[in-house]
Amino acid sequence: MTHAETIRRSWVLKRRPAGEPTRDDFELREEAIPQPGPGEVLTRTIFLSIDPYMRGRLREQQTYAAAVQIGEMMTGETVGEVLASAHPDLAPGDVAVGARGWSSHLLTRAEGLVKLPRHGAPLSAYLGVLGMPGATGYAGISGICTPQPGETVVVSAASGAVGSVAGQLAKRAGARVIGVAGGAEKCLWVQETLGFDDCVDHRSLDLERELAATCPKGIDAYFENVGGAVQAAVFDLLNPFARVAMCGMVSQYNQERPPPGPNLGFVVGKRVLIQGFIVSDRPERLVEWRRVAAPWVAQGSLRYREDVGGGLEQAPDALAGILTGRNFGKLLVRVGEGPA
Amino acid sequence: MTHAETIRRSWVLKRRPAGEPTRDDFELREEAIPQPGPGEVLTRTIFLSIDPYMRGRLREQQTYAAAVQIGEMMTGETVGEVLASAHPDLAPGDVAVGARGWSSHLLTRAEGLVKLPRHGAPLSAYLGVLGMPGATGYAGISGICTPQPGETVVVSAASGAVGSVAGQLAKRAGARVIGVAGGAEKCLWVQETLGFDDCVDHRSLDLERELAATCPKGIDAYFENVGGAVQAAVFDLLNPFARVAMCGMVSQYNQERPPPGPNLGFVVGKRVLIQGFIVSDRPERLVEWRRVAAPWVAQGSLRYREDVGGGLEQAPDALAGILTGRNFGKLLVRVGEGPA
Repeated sequence: MTHAETIRRSWVLKRRPAGEPTRDDFELREEAIPQPGPGEVLTRTIFLSIDPYMRGRLREQQTYAAAVQIGEMMTGETVGEVLASAHPDLAPGDVAVGARGWSSHLLTRAEGLVKLPRHGAPLSAYLGVLGMPGATGYAGISGICTPQPGETVVVSAASGAVGSVAGQLAKRAGARVIGVAGGAEKCLWVQETLGFDDCVDHRSLDLERELAATCPKGIDAYFENVGGAVQAAVFDLLNPFARVAMCGMVSQYNQERPPPGPNLGFVVGKRVLIQGFIVSDRPERLVEWRRVAAPWVAQGSLRYREDVGGGLEQAPDALAGILTGRNFGKLLVRVGEGPA
Repeated sequence: MTHAETIRRSWVLKRRPAGEPTRDDFELREEAIPQPGPGEVLTRTIFLSIDPYMRGRLREQQTYAAAVQIGEMMTGETVGEVLASAHPDLAPGDVAVGARGWSSHLLTRAEGLVKLPRHGAPLSAYLGVLGMPGATGYAGISGICTPQPGETVVVSAASGAVGSVAGQLAKRAGARVIGVAGGAEKCLWVQETLGFDDCVDHRSLDLERELAATCPKGIDAYFENVGGAVQAAVFDLLNPFARVAMCGMVSQYNQERPPPGPNLGFVVGKRVLIQGFIVSDRPERLVEWRRVAAPWVAQGSLRYREDVGGGLEQAPDALAGILTGRNFGKLLVRVGEGPA
C-alpha cells in the first residue's frame, strides 16, 4: 500500500478564531486510516460542504449543536465513496452522503449515511440544492414565509445555496421575489438565471432607498440569511402580518459582540411573525424535499450554481470566504476523485 | 332642562404630545348633546377605559388603527347607560359597552354596542378583566405562549389589566409564572393575590441577575408588554423553542425615537417564535373570553384590581400615568354615576 492508501488527512481545530477564521486556527493532521467496527462504514471523501453555520461550531458557547473542541476534527457534511463496510446496507463502491468531518476518510455509523443513486443528479447536488441547504430553503418558505400569489418576498444571500432555493420556491408560489446579494455579477445571475423579479446589491451606498424602490408595495415575507444593515432595511418595509423566516445572520458570525438589533415596536402594531428554525430539527423535511426537488433538478427547472474549490487543504480558506461572501453559489471543496 | 342635561363635555386633541402627554395637549370642549339618527344610540358615559395603546393614536403616523386627528375627540372604550335609542335592540336604561370617546355622552351605531347584564359582574369589569385587556391576555397566552406544565413563563407589566390575566392563565395551564412589575407593592400583590410564583421589580438595579435567579431553568414563554431593559433581560434567558407574545412595549411609547433592540442572532439558534398580535383582529376572541372568564370572575378565582380615577377632567392625567406605571391595576376614569 502507498502512503495515500493508509494515511488520512484531517483538519483539527487548533484554537478558537478571533474574528475571521484563518488557516492558522486549524491544523492538518495525518494518522492511520481507521477501520470500521460493527455497524460502521469507512468512506473516502469526494466533496466536503462548506456552510456558514460552521462558524458557530468554532465558538466555545454551545448553540443548538455542540461546539467543536480544541484538538477535535472540524465538522462538515460530505459525499464519499464506501471503501469498507461492516453493515449490510452499504458495500464498497457505493456512494453516500452524511459522513461528517473535514477529512479525507471518515468512519460513520451506517444509520447516518444515505446511499445515493449513481445515475441521478450530480453527486455534489446532494450537499446543496438536494441537500441540507435546499431543504432549509424549502422549510423556511413552505413553513414560515408561506408566500401567496402577488405578495412581495425578499430573500437575502440570494445567490447562495439556501437563498437561491428559497427565492425560486417563492416564485413558484406566485410571489414577486426580490433578492439581496453582494455585487453586480451575483445580482445579474439571481435575476437572469434564477428568475427573481429584481435583486438589490447590499453593497449599495443607499440600500434602504434601493430596496424601497424595488418593493413599492412593502414586504410580506422575508427569508433572512444575513442580519445587519439588510435586516434593518427589510424590517422597515415589512407589511402588516409579514412573516420572517430567521435562517441565519452571516454578516455577524465573525463578530465577538454582535451589534444591537432593530427596535421591535413594529412587531406589535404590524403583527409580524419572526420565527427561527434549524432544518435538522425535522429530518423528514430533507427526505420530503429530495422527493419534491429531484425531478425539478433533472428537468433543469430548479437552478443552482456551485463554487468548487480544490483540495482538502483549501477548507479553512473556503470557510473564511463564505463568511464574507467571496463564494458564488454553493461552496464545496473537492477532496477526492469521483467514483470509478 | 339644566345645562348638564343638554351639554356634553369631550376631550379633543389640541396638539400632538412631545414625549409624555399632558393636559395641555387636549382641550375640554362643551357642545350640545347630539341626538341619535336611525340605527344610532346615545349613551351617558359611566366608565372610560384608559389603556397604553392610546399613546399610539396620538402620533401622526398611522399604525394598525387610524391616528386621532387634531381637533378630533380622543378615543377610548366606555361603559354607558342608554339615554336615547333609534334601534330596537337597545332601550333607555340599558347599559352597554362599546361606545368610544373621551366624552360624557356618545353617539354610536347600535352594532358597535354590547348590552351588559345588570346582575352579573361589576360593569367596570367589562372594560378590564372581561373586556379587551382580559381578551388580550387570553389571546397571547392561548394562541402564542401556549404554556405547558412545568414550563417557565414570564409576564411583564404583571399587575396591569393584561398581564394579570395572562399570568393567571399561564398558572392555570400548569406553568411556573414569574411576573415583572414596578415596585414592591405591585410585586407583592402579583405574588400574594394573583398567585404568581415570583415577581421581579423592574426598577431593581440588577434586573438581569434577579430575573436569572428566579428563572433557573431559563424562560420558555414571554408575554411582552413593556420592551426596553426588561425585554433585553428576558431575551437573554430564553430557552430553545421559546415563544414570545408581543403585546406592547409601553416603556418606549413616549419616546420619539425608539432605542435599538436586542440583536436577533439568538432567534435562529434557539428557534424562537416572536409574534406580534392585536386582539381586535379576531373579535370573536372577546366573545369567547367573556364566556370562559365570566364564571371565574363570579367565583372569584380570576383575580383583578381596578384603579378608578374621578371625573372626565382626569382623563389626560390618567393616560400620562399609565404610560409611566403610576396606576395599580386596570385604570378607569369614572365619568358618571352608575345606572339607577
